[in-house]
Amino acid sequence: MVLGAAESPVLSFDVGGTDIKAGLVDARGAVLGMRRVPTPLDPARPGEAVLDRLAELAAELAAEFPGVPARAAGIIVPGIVDSVAGVGVYSANLGWRDFPFTAEAEKRLGIPVAFDHDVRSAAAVEHSFGGSKEFNDVVVMVVGTGIAAAVFSGGKAVTAGGFAGELGHAQVPDPDAAPGTTGSTILEAVGSAGAIAKRYHRASGNRVNGARDVLLKASEGDQAAARVWADAVDALAFTICQCVNIIGTEAVVIGGGLAEAGDELLDPLRTRVNQILDFQRRPHLIRAQLGQDAGLLGAAINARGLLGAGQ
Amino acid sequence: MVLGAAESPVLSFDVGGTDIKAGLVDARGAVLGMRRVPTPLDPARPGEAVLDRLAELAAELAAEFPGVPARAAGIIVPGIVDSVAGVGVYSANLGWRDFPFTAEAEKRLGIPVAFDHDVRSAAAVEHSFGGSKEFNDVVVMVVGTGIAAAVFSGGKAVTAGGFAGELGHAQVPDPDAAPGTTGSTILEAVGSAGAIAKRYHRASGNRVNGARDVLLKASEGDQAAARVWADAVDALAFTICQCVNIIGTEAVVIGGGLAEAGDELLDPLRTRVNQILDFQRRPHLIRAQLGQDAGLLGAAINARGLLGAGQ
Repeated sequence: MVLGAAESPVLSFDVGGTDIKAGLVDARGAVLGMRRVPTPLDPARPGEAVLDRLAELAAELAAEFPGVPARAAGIIVPGIVDSVAGVGVYSANLGWRDFPFTAEAEKRLGIPVAFDHDVRSAAAVEHSFGGSKEFNDVVVMVVGTGIAAAVFSGGKAVTAGGFAGELGHAQVPDPDAAPGTTGSTILEAVGSAGAIAKRYHRASGNRVNGARDVLLKASEGDQAAARVWADAVDALAFTICQCVNIIGTEAVVIGGGLAEAGDELLDPLRTRVNQILDFQRRPHLIRAQLGQDAGLLGAAINARGLLGAGQ
Repeated sequence: MVLGAAESPVLSFDVGGTDIKAGLVDARGAVLGMRRVPTPLDPARPGEAVLDRLAELAAELAAEFPGVPARAAGIIVPGIVDSVAGVGVYSANLGWRDFPFTAEAEKRLGIPVAFDHDVRSAAAVEHSFGGSKEFNDVVVMVVGTGIAAAVFSGGKAVTAGGFAGELGHAQVPDPDAAPGTTGSTILEAVGSAGAIAKRYHRASGNRVNGARDVLLKASEGDQAAARVWADAVDALAFTICQCVNIIGTEAVVIGGGLAEAGDELLDPLRTRVNQILDFQRRPHLIRAQLGQDAGLLGAAINARGLLGAGQ
């Protein structure tokens, strides 16, 4: 994968709720000195604590690869991100509000910084190189502990100041609603891998290691597991159909931990989407192809965008 | 309102499920010879029947205004419209599938034809001149007998080959679902003016003239009317929040018959939207400003776009 003409690498940081992944990414997309460290959580100065750690990682990488100084850095984070202003607007898990990441990171690193949203950046890589590249109206969903998404319309990323793609917080019918009510909850509370494990434990009393165990139990005839899995499929299908009706989504790429179920997820999801839709165009449901490094590659592409052509 | 430099008018046709509106629209947006005739319904040749009627209307207007020949025509229709290909993909009410409107209309009228979607065209006028013009991420909903919508993202219309904006067919929780189920229905079946009148009749046995009567009865203490109105508000708020979560919609313009309720609709709708949303940006809810002629103006602007600059 050729990321640009330049041979000099860029620094790439994928800041997650649990871990930070860091590395130097060269012009061919190869990651040098890849490392993973816990994300520091400091409620008093959440943004600063993360950037302090990134500066340490940058120094380590500079010491490890003295011959190839990074000329730009890419940082991606979760939550609501205003990439134009360079501001982390909000992160529920990491705790910042309106933190000026680009300016503060450039102070610490001394090189230009491209700051953007984690899932949008990874999804742009997935959308450029993966199974949805022939489509213009695409949603990339990352279904793991939570659910995040990137939305493409007419071939372009929909950002809306960082507020687009909050599919995990979109309302779905609540399978646990009291009888006779039309209560709703959010997709993440039913359709995420985390919710599947949690709701199965609540329904059965049995502890499981994750959504994969629930799927296994369902295949062995466990009724509670089958119900919880079906609820998740229903909720994911519900949200996919909202995308189809609102913005005419023609392909949905599903990544994250839950996508590892492959056709055991995608087949019932297709069936349910077909049941809900009427005259509308049926979306292609596609498993994500790129793995854990899509975020690092996305951050690197963002950083390389700061360098002029041929840089 | 100045539509362009040209003094010569364009033919404008707004084809609805019940009526066709037609007129000559001059460069200032004034409508000459405006008329309204029933939409012909011919199940065997639905597209041709409509175009035959448009050709008759064009001949009438040419005879009435002999000094100002139209140099282009705009035709807008409901349903799924592929304006790039010039094809009426599907109309549930009018019955066509994949009918080549642009090519067939140009044969009959002998001038260039701009063919597009009715609500998207009217919404573009509303969005250019109305209360949402300062916003980039906007949904314009027309809530009448049914519900249609136009979606703008980053300042541009989202079309997705004609499949975007089907908000009336987006799923919402079904207030009539059997107890203990999480059934859902479509927005149009609960939140439209047509549904409000129909559901009140079903709940109370009382016939009403329309949604406005139900609102009046609710204000007089009729519990069934209040319930039906609240269900409609819930359903509209549910769909608005889907737009906010998926594409970061920052303003929703509401037009059509139901918008005539003004703040009696918008105030409870704002309250309900605020209850559903959490950290998300709250959308501005705005009443549409342009009236019945927005469609004709939109079709005229489309037609004028076919003429070169200064034509």
